[in-house]
Amino acid sequence: MAEIKEACGVFGIYDLDGENVTPSIYYGLTSLQHRGQESCGLAVSRTNGERGNVQFHKDLGLVSEVLREDTIRKMEGDIGIGHVRYSTTGASVAENAQPLVLSYVKGTLALAHNGNLVNTPELKWELIQNGAIFHTTTDSEVIAFHIARERVHSKTVEEAVLKTAQKIQGAYALVIMSPRKLIGVRDPYGLKPLCLGKRGNAYVLASESCALRAVSAEFIRDIAPGEIVTITKDGIHSDMRLATGKHAHCVFEYIYFARLDSTMDGVNIYESRIRGGKSLAKSYPVEADLVTGVPESGIPAAKGYSEASGIPFGFAFYKNSYIGRTFIKPTQKERESSVHLKLSVLESVVKGKRIVLVDDSIVRGTTIANLIHMLKEAGALAVHVRICSPPFLHPCYFGTDVPSNDQLIASSHSTEEICKMIGADSLGYMKSEYLEGMAGHLPLCKACFDGNYPMEIPDVE
Amino acid sequence: MAEIKEACGVFGIYDLDGENVTPSIYYGLTSLQHRGQESCGLAVSRTNGERGNVQFHKDLGLVSEVLREDTIRKMEGDIGIGHVRYSTTGASVAENAQPLVLSYVKGTLALAHNGNLVNTPELKWELIQNGAIFHTTTDSEVIAFHIARERVHSKTVEEAVLKTAQKIQGAYALVIMSPRKLIGVRDPYGLKPLCLGKRGNAYVLASESCALRAVSAEFIRDIAPGEIVTITKDGIHSDMRLATGKHAHCVFEYIYFARLDSTMDGVNIYESRIRGGKSLAKSYPVEADLVTGVPESGIPAAKGYSEASGIPFGFAFYKNSYIGRTFIKPTQKERESSVHLKLSVLESVVKGKRIVLVDDSIVRGTTIANLIHMLKEAGALAVHVRICSPPFLHPCYFGTDVPSNDQLIASSHSTEEICKMIGADSLGYMKSEYLEGMAGHLPLCKACFDGNYPMEIPDVE
Amino acid sequence: MAEIKEACGVFGIYDLDGENVTPSIYYGLTSLQHRGQESCGLAVSRTNGERGNVQFHKDLGLVSEVLREDTIRKMEGDIGIGHVRYSTTGASVAENAQPLVLSYVKGTLALAHNGNLVNTPELKWELIQNGAIFHTTTDSEVIAFHIARERVHSKTVEEAVLKTAQKIQGAYALVIMSPRKLIGVRDPYGLKPLCLGKRGNAYVLASESCALRAVSAEFIRDIAPGEIVTITKDGIHSDMRLATGKHAHCVFEYIYFARLDSTMDGVNIYESRIRGGKSLAKSYPVEADLVTGVPESGIPAAKGYSEASGIPFGFAFYKNSYIGRTFIKPTQKERESSVHLKLSVLESVVKGKRIVLVDDSIVRGTTIANLIHMLKEAGALAVHVRICSPPFLHPCYFGTDVPSNDQLIASSHSTEEICKMIGADSLGYMKSEYLEGMAGHLPLCKACFDGNYPMEIPDVE
Amino acid sequence: MAEIKEACGVFGIYDLDGENVTPSIYYGLTSLQHRGQESCGLAVSRTNGERGNVQFHKDLGLVSEVLREDTIRKMEGDIGIGHVRYSTTGASVAENAQPLVLSYVKGTLALAHNGNLVNTPELKWELIQNGAIFHTTTDSEVIAFHIARERVHSKTVEEAVLKTAQKIQGAYALVIMSPRKLIGVRDPYGLKPLCLGKRGNAYVLASESCALRAVSAEFIRDIAPGEIVTITKDGIHSDMRLATGKHAHCVFEYIYFARLDSTMDGVNIYESRIRGGKSLAKSYPVEADLVTGVPESGIPAAKGYSEASGIPFGFAFYKNSYIGRTFIKPTQKERESSVHLKLSVLESVVKGKRIVLVDDSIVRGTTIANLIHMLKEAGALAVHVRICSPPFLHPCYFGTDVPSNDQLIASSHSTEEICKMIGADSLGYMKSEYLEGMAGHLPLCKACFDGNYPMEIPDVE
Repeated sequence: MAEIKEACGVFGIYDLDGENVTPSIYYGLTSLQHRGQESCGLAVSRTNGERGNVQFHKDLGLVSEVLREDTIRKMEGDIGIGHVRYSTTGASVAENAQPLVLSYVKGTLALAHNGNLVNTPELKWELIQNGAIFHTTTDSEVIAFHIARERVHSKTVEEAVLKTAQKIQGAYALVIMSPRKLIGVRDPYGLKPLCLGKRGNAYVLASESCALRAVSAEFIRDIAPGEIVTITKDGIHSDMRLATGKHAHCVFEYIYFARLDSTMDGVNIYESRIRGGKSLAKSYPVEADLVTGVPESGIPAAKGYSEASGIPFGFAFYKNSYIGRTFIKPTQKERESSVHLKLSVLESVVKGKRIVLVDDSIVRGTTIANLIHMLKEAGALAVHVRICSPPFLHPCYFGTDVPSNDQLIASSHSTEEICKMIGADSLGYMKSEYLEGMAGHLPLCKACFDGNYPMEIPDVE
Repeated sequence: MAEIKEACGVFGIYDLDGENVTPSIYYGLTSLQHRGQESCGLAVSRTNGERGNVQFHKDLGLVSEVLREDTIRKMEGDIGIGHVRYSTTGASVAENAQPLVLSYVKGTLALAHNGNLVNTPELKWELIQNGAIFHTTTDSEVIAFHIARERVHSKTVEEAVLKTAQKIQGAYALVIMSPRKLIGVRDPYGLKPLCLGKRGNAYVLASESCALRAVSAEFIRDIAPGEIVTITKDGIHSDMRLATGKHAHCVFEYIYFARLDSTMDGVNIYESRIRGGKSLAKSYPVEADLVTGVPESGIPAAKGYSEASGIPFGFAFYKNSYIGRTFIKPTQKERESSVHLKLSVLESVVKGKRIVLVDDSIVRGTTIANLIHMLKEAGALAVHVRICSPPFLHPCYFGTDVPSNDQLIASSHSTEEICKMIGADSLGYMKSEYLEGMAGHLPLCKACFDGNYPMEIPDVE
Repeated sequence: MAEIKEACGVFGIYDLDGENVTPSIYYGLTSLQHRGQESCGLAVSRTNGERGNVQFHKDLGLVSEVLREDTIRKMEGDIGIGHVRYSTTGASVAENAQPLVLSYVKGTLALAHNGNLVNTPELKWELIQNGAIFHTTTDSEVIAFHIARERVHSKTVEEAVLKTAQKIQGAYALVIMSPRKLIGVRDPYGLKPLCLGKRGNAYVLASESCALRAVSAEFIRDIAPGEIVTITKDGIHSDMRLATGKHAHCVFEYIYFARLDSTMDGVNIYESRIRGGKSLAKSYPVEADLVTGVPESGIPAAKGYSEASGIPFGFAFYKNSYIGRTFIKPTQKERESSVHLKLSVLESVVKGKRIVLVDDSIVRGTTIANLIHMLKEAGALAVHVRICSPPFLHPCYFGTDVPSNDQLIASSHSTEEICKMIGADSLGYMKSEYLEGMAGHLPLCKACFDGNYPMEIPDVE
Repeated sequence: MAEIKEACGVFGIYDLDGENVTPSIYYGLTSLQHRGQESCGLAVSRTNGERGNVQFHKDLGLVSEVLREDTIRKMEGDIGIGHVRYSTTGASVAENAQPLVLSYVKGTLALAHNGNLVNTPELKWELIQNGAIFHTTTDSEVIAFHIARERVHSKTVEEAVLKTAQKIQGAYALVIMSPRKLIGVRDPYGLKPLCLGKRGNAYVLASESCALRAVSAEFIRDIAPGEIVTITKDGIHSDMRLATGKHAHCVFEYIYFARLDSTMDGVNIYESRIRGGKSLAKSYPVEADLVTGVPESGIPAAKGYSEASGIPFGFAFYKNSYIGRTFIKPTQKERESSVHLKLSVLESVVKGKRIVLVDDSIVRGTTIANLIHMLKEAGALAVHVRICSPPFLHPCYFGTDVPSNDQLIASSHSTEEICKMIGADSLGYMKSEYLEGMAGHLPLCKACFDGNYPMEIPDVE
């Protein structure tokens, strides 16, 4: 039930045996859909065909809406990339859908990007001062433009990618298709995830390992922070010149973004959340009869809380899975409530019980307040809220869409105040010191909680 | 993960204060969507308007696809009914969508029906021999025709409904809208569910209590088997002349059809499934490390098994909720697998564990076999399957879409054989004697398991 | 530019050699599209298949919108019928689209109807009093119901059709498909057209001969007023028991409805309109420099006026053919005008000329007034209007959609007043006595002009 | 019936009073639809708003399909441009739809282009060598890029446009929207048309004068060849630095492209075609009974032939106007014929007559052969074909889509051979020396007939 939005998921595949990879991109994107539901697209090509012979299709909508059978079954190639995207930019966002497909000095280039740069204005200014034109408002076009400019003076496309990566600052996982090469890049901090898999003679790049499994590929390894991986007919080449050893993986992948069944930088996501829940039990024990989670995001942490506390885990809510993008929300006048339609309480489970309610985060606080009210109406004697992340206090500059400060309840209220406002009997946020433990002691970017950004961030005017 | 298909869900509302009920029907149908995903529709009218002034809209598709905002916001009335439907009949099924809206001797009649008659051929023959024409292939049109014919010689529409109910045999829950009345009928056996709610001065009829809550109505009571309820400006009138006292509620509502958060004929669905799981633990204890359920249908019973056995409950699968109606299934040639795309194993949970896997039923056995294989591949040491219903052995004549005998694995194989075929380490079906206990000791129709039909059924040629 | 709307066009085909007739129905309907643009549909069947095995598709929209390639290419049969329709009935008109496809005592019946009955209320009352239900508000369902009732006691379906025809009063051309027979019926007055064609071993029924040519069939003959034609494996059978010899063909087919390239009851449509224009030249000669017609409906009559008067024919208007059903009309505030967008004046043709402007009819008078204004603005010295029909004074009960009396300018104004109101320099309506001549001296129904209805018409309350 | 395809139509409007111009662009594009039916789009902005605040919508399809009411009614601005396009480039042509909307050094630029450059490869090469990327395969993006680059070192956008115009060679009519300016440009030869109109305080640019009339604007003048017109809050500024005085207007506008009711470079289109027909009568007199034209393109020339020869003009064909883009063409197996479905002969007009059949051009010769066959089958005694243009012998490099040489019947056959092949009794092409007279003695580009290109054209590989 988190109200935080992730930016994107990327996918790439190159089958050295020449098999058509289009269906695999479709299935890969389906398994990455949780990372972005606004738009999606894919591009495929034949490595032994004419340069520039790229087919692509992209639009606003879910994978199942944009990539229909007649479209998918007509597209054909042994190399291809795909993208799912969430964004909030303006009216004609169809133009911003990815992959970007462009012609440049060496033919056709396709690019899919997850992340956000912090020096886009400077990078764009430089280009625009030299007479560049931009069709989109995305960082991705800025990156593509720099690759194209560097390509003029570089021997190979991967060389141009490296030079570009040396200029851009921020979070990025890139999957790039040139006429004969599939390239994957991860920013030096490893802020955004990217991993490598293999299926027979086909190589796969994906934001999460769950997408490898979806296409029956085996996980090989995570792309290292700062690594540029180039896949050609001759196999895989890895370039580590960009790497710095200063890592800062986005903590929110472990709290909320990544799929339960993924393993990211060696850390299993489901287990992370279990550990998160356990740490909450340790920090904020309470006498209660039942631990439950807000579906779906709070369930694993609730399980962890239960395991550590010994308080039985149970389902307190039923979630209506038919409420999708086109759901007509009740107007003010109508008596129905959006929250009640999405979630309903299993009264027999809740009645007469003291309940621990676990969720991944609190943004505005309105949803959790509604759920607490529903539980109490159904006969819960007490509702103790446990949040599997610290309070949100700082903006993210790396591609996570967090509401602005004035909408973040934690930015202007103390935990005690919030507890009162949402009607909870007690409230505990995860203590910062447990974040690393939760995420397998990986080096993390947790700037949204503590304000320590891993790189210089732009001045807000 | 059950492969059994339910026929329908019905909804009706009459707001005596004259408020527009269209949004409430929309929300009611959204909360009944699990009962039928093939087609849906609604009809509304003004009780103080001209007779016959009915607006309606229906088509193939989910509620969110058929009933779009522009349609819903244009429709207006203080009385209305709605329907969701699953069926398997032929090409032009849009014609069979409900509610049926008809003009007859007294103006306009709209009718929504859940269930199946067993004497349709005779009823239809009688009408057709008298020169009737039929636009659809549904039982519902046969019922409507009989009501119309009886209405000619009856003082009231509810009288005509009674006379019709005396002729039709089978399972039915009907919601009928005449120009000034909302009528609900339930067959004398109570095979199909129907309940009554109230919101201010509005009365609501719905297949399940979850739909009452969705529209902020309070549950009043279940419609009794054989009861005809008529709601007019003057309130509610109940006619029990059809009732016999011989009840037989469909056991599958408690096993699979009904929503977890509904209470049906006094029995809470979630608690039923918990009890089912507990009885399995009693009948088939096993030494194991983890109890898990097949999402979503097997989860509550797994919880019950865990509670009774003391073996910890856990999540072994992740379900991709973006795989909907338009999902492109892999072809034979493609390496991806439909089951893997829908469900994936949480390896860290499963590895090295002896697992109890609970599901609601087995039809063909292919899905459960796949899941067992996935668990073992992920490192499960053993997989003990427990099924929260007895083996399926007999066809249903009352509206549940069960595959034909030759596709039912239990009709031609012993439990031992099935256990081997699906690759389980042990297999236990719920014992028949526990069904009543599971369903709160209600009188049940469990003919699909024991062949004892509550009424005479047609000869199969 | 006439504002009169026709009701329908019908088409039927039976290929005795068993070839698939679906494409031919599609092309036939395309060539009848001018007769109805609101909805359309087709139904096909295999005569050697199971009874009741009918495929059909129908919806609101043009043939090109409703019958898409994927639909048409899936449908298959050696017998079939189709329909195009214009109507004005209420919201859910999709239900009223034709052909009607019904099951009745002898299997499946499909029916397409052009026309309007005058005793529908009585016919419907009789049925409804006996307990009938109606899904649509069309006359066609009433006819189908009577056929079904008569079929019970008749040896053959054509016998039941005859008995039905003996009861119904009004205008009708029917095409009926029973499992093994294609039947065509024309009312005893011959108000609505129907003709017969042949292509190899396939027989074709169509509202107009242009539809025969569209499917490469040769015209055989018109169906006679009161004739019932039955096409079976054994060939054609004609039943004339209904015929009376009292004929009254709808004059508006010759004035406006029928396509220029059709020949109807032996009279060529294009030549009729030429004759109409000639008679206007004789009745209302005027000194002028150019004769022109309102596109498209007034062009042939203008050509006739030119030929008879010796005044040169010319094109004064350009018509934008891209302005279709979805055209967004200018709002009051916007400066653009619908008429100007559809038609523009060829100034060089018009300037300094005295013009004779010919159209088929005047309904409200607003369009012609606009055109006269445009011509004068473009420099026309005078505009003499000639109308190729008498003033509209009486309602049509036979299926022609004429605006109600208060919208008919001729019902409350003299010719002199109208001339002034529309800004013409002179105005001449065709004299009634020339109508027969125009239509090849056929016996006509011209009740809309003279009030002499060929049969008793219902009392207006 | 010409098979030659035009590239585009452009439209721009700036209302100095601040009125919303979106509907006017819609109506303007509707009136230019004949110039391009593949894709269309529009972009609008507020001149007093933020820079870069541009709304736009474009896609494949007709104006009525792409620009639906809900889209149009949401868009708002006092300045805007629009485009209709025909093209033949590859799969993902939606990307190539116009207007192009780009951000560049000075904010947002929108550009609509009619025409074709001959030095695109050099221009693109220069850019691409400097690291440019291209999203589309259109000349228009190359132009936009050059404007952006020049803008860096120019004081004003019109200065950058001038510098760009000095580099690009070929045919172009451009309409450009910058945040506060509307700019129109016409190539120095005047190959492509562009004219200026005024409505109150709003200025309008359009490919043809018919689009001015559509929006109730008055024609002011044609933009001169080589003129750059800039419309700002302060009115109109004209820059003639590009002009050379060497004009070469595309002759095909007068033969076929332009709408009958337009006047282009002072010459009325309808009158041109009348003159063309007259010259044919003079060059190729013949004894005949009737002159007719192929609808719609041959009708005016046929009228001219008739006037000059004294042989009566008549309609020999009926055209079905419901056969649009989605028409399902008959397969080889089906007996129906595409030509017969689109056009049918009015037999009564044709029978026993010697006919002069006029069309605008012959490309492959198959259509005219079909029509001659149809006329003879309908009883024509002779068919004399007159073509209102010389034989097509040379490719067009300026944006007219002519089939390649091997498909042009005239490139490999003499007139006598063609006459025989199409089954005509005589055949006369317009003599080259009459082209200037037809087009009002304007200086013309008639390279498609005589190979004399007004500028150097690219070597074919």
